[in-house]
Amino acid sequence: MNVASLLCDELGKNQVLTKDHPYLAPYSRDESGLGDFHPDCVALCESAEQVSIVLRLAQEHNIPVTPRGAGTGMTGGCLPVYGGIVLSTERMNKIIDIDTKNSIAIVQPGTIVSTIQDAVEEQGLFYPPDPASLKTCSIGGNIASNAGGPRAFKYGVTREYVLGLHMGLMGGELLRCGKQTTKGVTGYDLTAGFVGSEGTFGVVTEATIKLLPLPQSTALLLALFQNETSCSNAIDQLLHQGFHPRAIELMDRNTLMHMTSSDIDLSSHWAVLIELDGEPNTLETITIHIGELLEKNNAIDVIVARDERDRRRLWSIRRACSKSLRNAHQYKISEDICVPRGSIGELFKRIDSIPTPSDLSIATFGHAGDGNLHVNILADSEEATKHIEPFVHALFEHTIALKGTLSGEHGIGLSKKQYMPLEQTPQVIAWQKKWKHMWDPNNLLNPGKIFPDDNGKTFPIASRRCPE
Amino acid sequence: MNVASLLCDELGKNQVLTKDHPYLAPYSRDESGLGDFHPDCVALCESAEQVSIVLRLAQEHNIPVTPRGAGTGMTGGCLPVYGGIVLSTERMNKIIDIDTKNSIAIVQPGTIVSTIQDAVEEQGLFYPPDPASLKTCSIGGNIASNAGGPRAFKYGVTREYVLGLHMGLMGGELLRCGKQTTKGVTGYDLTAGFVGSEGTFGVVTEATIKLLPLPQSTALLLALFQNETSCSNAIDQLLHQGFHPRAIELMDRNTLMHMTSSDIDLSSHWAVLIELDGEPNTLETITIHIGELLEKNNAIDVIVARDERDRRRLWSIRRACSKSLRNAHQYKISEDICVPRGSIGELFKRIDSIPTPSDLSIATFGHAGDGNLHVNILADSEEATKHIEPFVHALFEHTIALKGTLSGEHGIGLSKKQYMPLEQTPQVIAWQKKWKHMWDPNNLLNPGKIFPDDNGKTFPIASRRCPE
Repeated sequence: MNVASLLCDELGKNQVLTKDHPYLAPYSRDESGLGDFHPDCVALCESAEQVSIVLRLAQEHNIPVTPRGAGTGMTGGCLPVYGGIVLSTERMNKIIDIDTKNSIAIVQPGTIVSTIQDAVEEQGLFYPPDPASLKTCSIGGNIASNAGGPRAFKYGVTREYVLGLHMGLMGGELLRCGKQTTKGVTGYDLTAGFVGSEGTFGVVTEATIKLLPLPQSTALLLALFQNETSCSNAIDQLLHQGFHPRAIELMDRNTLMHMTSSDIDLSSHWAVLIELDGEPNTLETITIHIGELLEKNNAIDVIVARDERDRRRLWSIRRACSKSLRNAHQYKISEDICVPRGSIGELFKRIDSIPTPSDLSIATFGHAGDGNLHVNILADSEEATKHIEPFVHALFEHTIALKGTLSGEHGIGLSKKQYMPLEQTPQVIAWQKKWKHMWDPNNLLNPGKIFPDDNGKTFPIASRRCPE
Repeated sequence: MNVASLLCDELGKNQVLTKDHPYLAPYSRDESGLGDFHPDCVALCESAEQVSIVLRLAQEHNIPVTPRGAGTGMTGGCLPVYGGIVLSTERMNKIIDIDTKNSIAIVQPGTIVSTIQDAVEEQGLFYPPDPASLKTCSIGGNIASNAGGPRAFKYGVTREYVLGLHMGLMGGELLRCGKQTTKGVTGYDLTAGFVGSEGTFGVVTEATIKLLPLPQSTALLLALFQNETSCSNAIDQLLHQGFHPRAIELMDRNTLMHMTSSDIDLSSHWAVLIELDGEPNTLETITIHIGELLEKNNAIDVIVARDERDRRRLWSIRRACSKSLRNAHQYKISEDICVPRGSIGELFKRIDSIPTPSDLSIATFGHAGDGNLHVNILADSEEATKHIEPFVHALFEHTIALKGTLSGEHGIGLSKKQYMPLEQTPQVIAWQKKWKHMWDPNNLLNPGKIFPDDNGKTFPIASRRCPE
């Protein structure tokens, strides 16, 4: 039996990339750098009905299906580790409706997140979740991974914006669930369960998302500090005084040392970027207050964005973090651990205490307001990468000891599945597997992800070369 | 086999109320007014281990168990409709820990919500969910029903604050799941699934809840309007200008007409109560702006609370709504439908259009910011109550037609289960039942709730006499 020919028969040839197709290769990898895993074919679905056909055929013929959005995931969640079919939703990329009266949008899963944001902002509305990849990632992938981003601090993560879903289930059933209201407690929340299930429960074919009024204005401040303690103290003060910025981003000294292109002297400092939003006049007052508060709390310098150009310049520092580190090093592994916010200082101390060979360096930045930090392990030789895994293991152990979690926003996917037992008991994992069994009893939908003991296969972290 | 004696043997006599016990009666009813359903006995559990024992015995002997928090639910969710054991968590009422550094509290399920709020506020922290019953309801019940309240508008509902749970499962297994961080996407979110499952998936034995910094200051405004359109326009303006109050409460003319004790002339008006929080100086500026905005938007009068006494006086108007209506009428049925916020005006029009016999009157108030309205049907004779059910049916049909939901925050329980098919397809209900089956395959935990076709029994809405 040939999977691809089955799909060609039912979907049409234009919807299928066969194994020898020149365009197949990109579907073998993602942004995790975990390597290439070739599918038997790719189904480029254009409708819920086509998704249903793929999932029906897969069940009938016992073929694994790996759903794929835009392939921007960091943990290998869309890699077809057991071959089979990659089900891409990239062609389902329409905004079906923006209901301005009710502040709701209906979107197809392949729609790029920034496309949605731009479209709703034109109507005076706002979709807050803003993962770093927002210009390339799809809303379907964001839903599968319950994506966050800087603005999650004030506005919460993707799950809080997904009101309803239309899902393709393994076997071909299509299910519409959820609501169109902000609040609602009618029955069990199937929708909340789908969000963050990493494409293992079903395939998003349409989503109803909640929109907010677009904030009239934003304000941005960058504060430089001598050390982490000063950063943390200033953030604590800010929050305890009742200010509620929409983002509080932290960059450590080692991250800033890589920022060669900035016109601000960042070297040997730590930085905190604070973004606020609201009504323009009151925002101005608040910005002045916060600037004073930061100076009182030992900021070496506070830079306030005066216009849109300033704003872009300051955000570009934060946005360049990942790229600067990547450009400077041959290997870059980025973890996204999360600890309770009060434990960030202790986490930094513990990171410093992990024995690190001289050929590894560590740079940390991320969402300080949430305690969600991107710890980057940097190496410049194949030899050095051997030390990455022990470092990551120690990092995760310290994270868990501080009541933290392995992943704040990237998910588990392939890259972190072997670490699951560090955080979760066999009992918790067993109940999750029962839940998975409810949706996909034959384990055909995105198999090999999340749980550590899937056929005993592991995918060693040291193989994760950063994508160019 | 005698349930009570089994429980006495294993738990001890002091933990069990037998059928003839004088204190048993209150466990037969709740705030729904749906009537009395006597259990065979009540287990007054004092620990997770005792909860486990009850759930083990129940499974072994095929006895229904109905979990009960403080019995303040509005939909009959804790009524033991098939007898068996009422499992009360009221004695598990300790705050185990308030971790100020990490802004987390660990609480037992029977703890009264306002007790938690007072305790954390003393430490400069804040637990936002504030259902009207906060001084009498328990956190376990709040978790079971995913409770809301006025502050949900800014701060979200209970689920957004439940980070981790310790649960008793049918059969006696105890399960600890969840995280202690604000963000976290490690595996499937079992915790989110438990919240709002109305005590049918498991029994909360301990919860880890997220706390926020206590806002330094609050501000409160009451605005009076001529009609609903003016209220809605003013609220729209407020939100579109980027203001984010923590509560936006609406009271219609008929509700205000019942407020005989207020020193403000409320009669023949509609009212909007707006509460803000934040840093005191900026809050003052914001309050002035909002006051002007309300006046520009046709407010007849805007009253700003100048001190704590004023604050209490204004909130007492909103807090007295339910009681005033109840005192004035023999029968009061309160629904808690929710529509997208932009459809509130249309909903009011449709409510007016429902043919209402002269012996029924309707008064509506609630959380306008969320579109979550408490529609009260008031009657003064047994004869008149016959008209309640057709009205409720029509109300629900209009709500669903406006993309709304049957319940914004009270849940389905017993009182709304027969209406589930108005909102949800048989397919959605079937998947929910599979989820229920995963946790409780013998349907022994809180049976007879949420789903319409449970043994064909229905509990007619007209029997819902309001509690005194």
